Amino acid sequence: MTASFTAVPTPLEIARQTRRAARTLAVLPPAARDGALMAIADALENQAAAIVAANEADCAAAIADGLSNALYGRLKLDGVKLQGAIAGVRDVAKLPDPIGTVQLHRQLDEGLILKRLTCPLGVLGVIFEARPDAAIQIAALAIKSGNGVILKGGREAARTCTAIVETIHQALATTAVSPEAVQLLTTREETIALLKLDEYIDLIVPRGSNEFVRYIQDNTRIPVLGHADGICHLYVHGAADQDRAIAIAVDAKTQYPSACNAIETLLVDRAIAAEFLPQVGRALQAKGVELRADEAAYPPLQTAGLTNLAIATDEDWSTEYTDLILAIKVVDGPDDAIAHINHYGSGHTDAIVTEDAIVAAQFLAEVDAAGVYHNCSTRFADGFRYGFGAEVGISTAQMPPRGPVGLEGLVTYKYRIVGQGHIAATYSGPDAKPFQHQDLPPHGDTP
Amino acid sequence: MTASFTAVPTPLEIARQTRRAARTLAVLPPAARDGALMAIADALENQAAAIVAANEADCAAAIADGLSNALYGRLKLDGVKLQGAIAGVRDVAKLPDPIGTVQLHRQLDEGLILKRLTCPLGVLGVIFEARPDAAIQIAALAIKSGNGVILKGGREAARTCTAIVETIHQALATTAVSPEAVQLLTTREETIALLKLDEYIDLIVPRGSNEFVRYIQDNTRIPVLGHADGICHLYVHGAADQDRAIAIAVDAKTQYPSACNAIETLLVDRAIAAEFLPQVGRALQAKGVELRADEAAYPPLQTAGLTNLAIATDEDWSTEYTDLILAIKVVDGPDDAIAHINHYGSGHTDAIVTEDAIVAAQFLAEVDAAGVYHNCSTRFADGFRYGFGAEVGISTAQMPPRGPVGLEGLVTYKYRIVGQGHIAATYSGPDAKPFQHQDLPPHGDTP
Repeated sequence: MTASFTAVPTPLEIARQTRRAARTLAVLPPAARDGALMAIADALENQAAAIVAANEADCAAAIADGLSNALYGRLKLDGVKLQGAIAGVRDVAKLPDPIGTVQLHRQLDEGLILKRLTCPLGVLGVIFEARPDAAIQIAALAIKSGNGVILKGGREAARTCTAIVETIHQALATTAVSPEAVQLLTTREETIALLKLDEYIDLIVPRGSNEFVRYIQDNTRIPVLGHADGICHLYVHGAADQDRAIAIAVDAKTQYPSACNAIETLLVDRAIAAEFLPQVGRALQAKGVELRADEAAYPPLQTAGLTNLAIATDEDWSTEYTDLILAIKVVDGPDDAIAHINHYGSGHTDAIVTEDAIVAAQFLAEVDAAGVYHNCSTRFADGFRYGFGAEVGISTAQMPPRGPVGLEGLVTYKYRIVGQGHIAATYSGPDAKPFQHQDLPPHGDTP
Repeated sequence: MTASFTAVPTPLEIARQTRRAARTLAVLPPAARDGALMAIADALENQAAAIVAANEADCAAAIADGLSNALYGRLKLDGVKLQGAIAGVRDVAKLPDPIGTVQLHRQLDEGLILKRLTCPLGVLGVIFEARPDAAIQIAALAIKSGNGVILKGGREAARTCTAIVETIHQALATTAVSPEAVQLLTTREETIALLKLDEYIDLIVPRGSNEFVRYIQDNTRIPVLGHADGICHLYVHGAADQDRAIAIAVDAKTQYPSACNAIETLLVDRAIAAEFLPQVGRALQAKGVELRADEAAYPPLQTAGLTNLAIATDEDWSTEYTDLILAIKVVDGPDDAIAHINHYGSGHTDAIVTEDAIVAAQFLAEVDAAGVYHNCSTRFADGFRYGFGAEVGISTAQMPPRGPVGLEGLVTYKYRIVGQGHIAATYSGPDAKPFQHQDLPPHGDTP
């Protein structure tokens, strides 16, 4: 709409437009941002038939192109899925405002007041494969957090994404948020251009396969929020409650095997291997899990008569199957298990099952991962389950934000000082006045 | 010492050693880390004469090599400067422990408890030019925060850095911290190798010139904490208290002109330019400041008889002088000033002087920088002045940590969940049990 009678803008021009719109969006009051989200939800509801029709056209083209079943499943956006996405927009509007939170409030000296306040990052670049409902969700999260957003959908979802973004633009035109705050790119060339716009884009959020995320991480200087691999471990210690261990292993592997927080490797203490492995193996195979056992784990599993069984190779320890396959390794106690996890893990989420509090404490302290769990399933690693209300992604980076990231991953902070003509010279040299550094209540009045 | 009878280890081998040592250091209690710092301070005191002698040899070689005066000043480590650095180590030991802070404590469900706890990053890579006292300070900060550290000093400071790190190793050999947690590299080839070790190093902290920091940022995938440019602005609004504005301008430019938080550009509203510029110009020139004025600012300064005066070019708006030079531009009110700052600024620290609360609020909200100040000098942008106790660096990145960064920049966090056999299946599907998401006091008992 915005470019009906003009030349198609370049990614650089789009990024500049978005940045300009984002600066205005950043200082809007929360009610204006939430109102824009409600307008978007209403407009999507009104245009639902047109969006579903656009998606049907994308799906028909995808079938003609021989798209894989998995990708097709993610591309498909029927009325029910769309209604779910619209409800998600309204949920995001109801979340607490992430902007303007006082993180520090300190009197440096009489009349010299420091505050650290959360503020929007600026412009987000969101690159996703297939799933057009991701465009709806991420546009909502961006507006909620006061950020402009450039959406890059897959070519296969171009008709759907265009219909969605046009609807969002129509809705925003009636609100205080400029339609230019939400932009859409659709070609692969534009993705490559986008990754180079580090002057205009503050954070890239990729949504897609491991290879896709790794490609993005390797080809941009812009910070990337997310993770490529999710190689999660469950370690069953010698002093584990074995019934719990079986229930957790089955849940962590089979409850949603393609999730990043599903386990890929089961580590079992040598002392209990002969007793525990046949039981857990039977429970897993009842759910259709193929087992890949190391030399020590193989014999007890074979003796138990399990069939869907192979010998694990070194490659298995660093493979994310995202499928009903589990590697199994026998270890010699906690040190061995922790060393294996810290070497092969991806820093996502790792769990121990044990009734020994000292061993549990060692595991929780020494395993270097965003999530370290004791006596529960790795499947809890999720922003909604943590109570964050929304999930932007799960980060396996060492620096914060780490682990499941909610809206706080889309904001930064600035330090504000308000003085009354204060200068630094007063506080230096032989007659330096000392600072007070007196902390004040976050929302208290400044004296 | 550690490699007396073996081949010189490669940077990769050193990084692996450091990582191993760091894993042990990470789980030591605070008293063990603080005790190690006290042992280092004592040992440095005992070896002071040898360290000063090593520095004299470095300085003599530097003079023979024709090192610049500025670099020589930073290289020189006499007894007084060394005592200051040793006192700094003891100060770091007394800081609150940055590890194990509970940032979130939440009951997800009965018996399923989530905590977010601060923990060390892992291994730091610290690359600094000349200043050997930086090695002492940063080793102390690393040990305090539970991190291993690989120090890379300049070749010109090799003798001094070696004497310092050997002393630190001797001290650590008597403590719970492995000497391998602190390592030293000295050649340029090793720096290049270090920047590629993203598997072993979690954060790079550069200490040196803008060009040096930019080189490092451009040549590593490891996160870099710091900033290249510090292009700070002072905007004097039409409703400014002009005496305050003059005092702040003089302080912000001249109190320490080579500091990154000194101003490079003064923006003055057109409405007061004729009255204000001659006054502020005289005050600045009394301190020896060269003025580079735009077309509108030049005439009133020239008419006032100021001599050390030039016409500013576009290049001036994006130059960090780190010297007694100030660019001056006349602007048409807050929108113009904010647009200039957001275009040319480096996101470090920018200040406004005004008695108009509404304009001040607009400036503080709309300027996109780590520090936004009202009626005070930009020179307050400093970790010690903010009350952080120690300063790791000042970041102009958009993502946190941003602005002056204390010890919190050297830690990350992990999510811990302790359950009692909880599985995710319980909370999904048609009979899904709802989560409680009940926040608990940070240090309260888990129910």
